[in-house]
Amino acid sequence: MPNPTAAMLVIGDEILSGRTRDANMHFLAQELTKHGIDLKEVRIVSDEAATIETAVQALSQSHDHVFTSGGIGPTHDDITADCIARAFGAAIDVRADARALLEAHYDKSGLELNAARLRMARIPDGAALIDNPVSTAPGFTLGNVHVMAGVPLVFQAMVASVLPGLTGGQPLLSQTLRVDRGEGDIASTLSNLAEDFSDLSIGCYPFQVNGVFGANVVVRGTEGARIDAAMTRLAKELEL
Amino acid sequence: MPNPTAAMLVIGDEILSGRTRDANMHFLAQELTKHGIDLKEVRIVSDEAATIETAVQALSQSHDHVFTSGGIGPTHDDITADCIARAFGAAIDVRADARALLEAHYDKSGLELNAARLRMARIPDGAALIDNPVSTAPGFTLGNVHVMAGVPLVFQAMVASVLPGLTGGQPLLSQTLRVDRGEGDIASTLSNLAEDFSDLSIGCYPFQVNGVFGANVVVRGTEGARIDAAMTRLAKELEL
Repeated sequence: MPNPTAAMLVIGDEILSGRTRDANMHFLAQELTKHGIDLKEVRIVSDEAATIETAVQALSQSHDHVFTSGGIGPTHDDITADCIARAFGAAIDVRADARALLEAHYDKSGLELNAARLRMARIPDGAALIDNPVSTAPGFTLGNVHVMAGVPLVFQAMVASVLPGLTGGQPLLSQTLRVDRGEGDIASTLSNLAEDFSDLSIGCYPFQVNGVFGANVVVRGTEGARIDAAMTRLAKELEL
Repeated sequence: MPNPTAAMLVIGDEILSGRTRDANMHFLAQELTKHGIDLKEVRIVSDEAATIETAVQALSQSHDHVFTSGGIGPTHDDITADCIARAFGAAIDVRADARALLEAHYDKSGLELNAARLRMARIPDGAALIDNPVSTAPGFTLGNVHVMAGVPLVFQAMVASVLPGLTGGQPLLSQTLRVDRGEGDIASTLSNLAEDFSDLSIGCYPFQVNGVFGANVVVRGTEGARIDAAMTRLAKELEL
């Protein structure tokens, strides 16, 4: 059985403008790979309601899971929760369970649960809350969409809350061989290898260090013994 | 007149698996912002022909420019050029101008221009070559799609070759105010500011350092004086 597939939707004017560099995508990619869920696509879109709605609908239909990051805080530019609700035709309002979490949190911290903060309790009907052990304000899962915060520490905590509940497949294993030759020298060897090991994914990723070109050959699959066999043959053929 | 818009398509199994972290997106985002071209969307897709073709068609139709990175080297997994050609219904083969570049380069370096390397001279009919001062093998522009290498040094050099030829708009300017309070405390101030300065984009990006929450308020626009006015009012209202 093939592994479940996933897409990620990053709501991120900040990333598109080049002001900040996304950190959540790389983290999620690594966690999903370990869990046996294949991340097939990432989209980074701007903070525009129609854009977010269209993207989440498309990704939700074409993948088993969608993970979103960003736009669920208390400020005027936090529009993700409402967009997800509209994308699924679900009603959304301040929900008692989420409100109770925030009340307990702000009571303890002595801060006011004002109107802005209460926006973080806006949860679509039918959604399940995602635990946020860092700063309390919850994420939520609606259908196959997991809606999480953009702040990396909170995003990571929410991923840790969500992943154990999802059925994973076989973790993708990989081995890497660094070759200090240009890709063009090893291309035919790799091509033959890819044909003979068609159950594996064989990628070649060139690099350049101090003007010298080399390549990392990465062999990926779910069976360790097959990867070992491919790597052994590769090393032998390249006389490494 | 609004600025031209752009999308980026990253061909990247390597990034989706979490093995490597993309560097090109952040670079391109910064360069486009300086040049007055608005990056509106980034998609990262796996190295699958149908996926690449569908994505490039969609992005090409909805944006003024599309920039791709990755998959134009000499190995079996380098399928981008052929996918772009198919997406536009263009014929593709080894082209004399690209071949001449490679011949001169490999003559000089004493390396063999073998069949694998010659694949890098496969250029769709009607495409314009993109200069590659780092490693010679060219990128190309077909329609509104600029096809570039994934190796960061080469990608950056190709962006530098392409951008001066594109009509830019007004560079997006921004100022940032760091506020050491939770977002919830400043949300209503920001909301009012965003209403009164609807020609600007006002974003609030929370962070957490050593357990203390704060936020960067970023005001973006094309008129420096308006940004100054918004920042002055913001600092006054927050008593900073």
